[in-house]
Amino acid sequence: MSSGAAAGTPRPALKRGLFLSFEGIDGSGKSTQARMLAETLRAQGREVVLTREPGGSPGAEEIRALVLQGDPDRWSARTEILLFTAARRDHLERTIQPALDRGAVVICDRFADSTRMYQGLSRGNLRAMVDKLHRLMIGIEPDITLLIDMDPEVGLARAKGRQGTEERFEDFGADLQRKMRAGFLNLADEYADRFRVIDGARSPDQVAADVLDVAREVMAEDPA
Amino acid sequence: MSSGAAAGTPRPALKRGLFLSFEGIDGSGKSTQARMLAETLRAQGREVVLTREPGGSPGAEEIRALVLQGDPDRWSARTEILLFTAARRDHLERTIQPALDRGAVVICDRFADSTRMYQGLSRGNLRAMVDKLHRLMIGIEPDITLLIDMDPEVGLARAKGRQGTEERFEDFGADLQRKMRAGFLNLADEYADRFRVIDGARSPDQVAADVLDVAREVMAEDPA
Repeated sequence: MSSGAAAGTPRPALKRGLFLSFEGIDGSGKSTQARMLAETLRAQGREVVLTREPGGSPGAEEIRALVLQGDPDRWSARTEILLFTAARRDHLERTIQPALDRGAVVICDRFADSTRMYQGLSRGNLRAMVDKLHRLMIGIEPDITLLIDMDPEVGLARAKGRQGTEERFEDFGADLQRKMRAGFLNLADEYADRFRVIDGARSPDQVAADVLDVAREVMAEDPA
Repeated sequence: MSSGAAAGTPRPALKRGLFLSFEGIDGSGKSTQARMLAETLRAQGREVVLTREPGGSPGAEEIRALVLQGDPDRWSARTEILLFTAARRDHLERTIQPALDRGAVVICDRFADSTRMYQGLSRGNLRAMVDKLHRLMIGIEPDITLLIDMDPEVGLARAKGRQGTEERFEDFGADLQRKMRAGFLNLADEYADRFRVIDGARSPDQVAADVLDVAREVMAEDPA
């Protein structure tokens, strides 16, 4: 995990775990892949904390409910960014950092890259603000981010097959999903050291094999 | 209202109102003074929006409830700062800025100076973080801030005479209140152009007369 700016989280000198995030457009299968990787690593005897954003700690889940329920225009883009960052800070302090400190593998379904994309891009040109806020209040990035990449038409068809009451981010339509896919691929270029792009338009088992290869590579570099 | 950093609120070229805030320790009488000033200015035919923080808009009141209810250690200092800043952003966009845009006088019981004091000082040495976050996400200050200053012993005796379920900031004790008084006076020095310090250890009517003198002075400089 790369350390952030001066205002960031205290970095313990202890041996620590690994922090992996999954990103991708809706319907890309990233949540399924996160779960499959967690099961595989647990079967190998690893302690795995499988978590998600927004949410991932009791306080962050309450903030998630506050943001996602109700009228989509209830919060401005800037207020929403602040609420998601508050949820992330709670998630980091209460769930992620304690798990890393005891050497666990943390697998997070979405992290700050989703805010860079959804709040920083789709709700206004606020990427620079999102980045400054992240450096000031969060300060860390995953060791590795797995981008499950696929054609938005395929992803949308998958997403529409699901049920859910939190429709806001699922209901943006194909044009926005194409923009998001391109945005995630741009992020993968921008943070090339940290991102691994995986073709998600295959069977879950095929995708999972690639995901596991990446996880093994990272764990070999940094055995917990 | 002084304009903030590049990331701040759009500043309309329209004629606009006046933004006054009240600050002070618990029991200082600032809420009473805010209400008395609002009544006096309304009696003079002014449109006055009397509001308060944390809260002051429907969304910000929901965030206020999330922060203030429950265990005092439920949120870390950093998460709390983010939640209060989210509430402030909503309050600014939904209540304060629209009122200023139509030429009203906005009287706010606590604003960012309270975060500088309570979250920036009492819950850790986070003042620099609070200031950076304010510049990035809020960006404006009141035209004038009235600090109702008094000996904490007097203020505590007054605060203990009130009922309330939101006890967190009322229950810090005399030592912290002394530290807060000194901190507010330091803020008044730091922002000497904007702060007016008023002796609150007198009758409400005597204090209100001084408050009204300050308000008249500001309105004479900038008639709405």
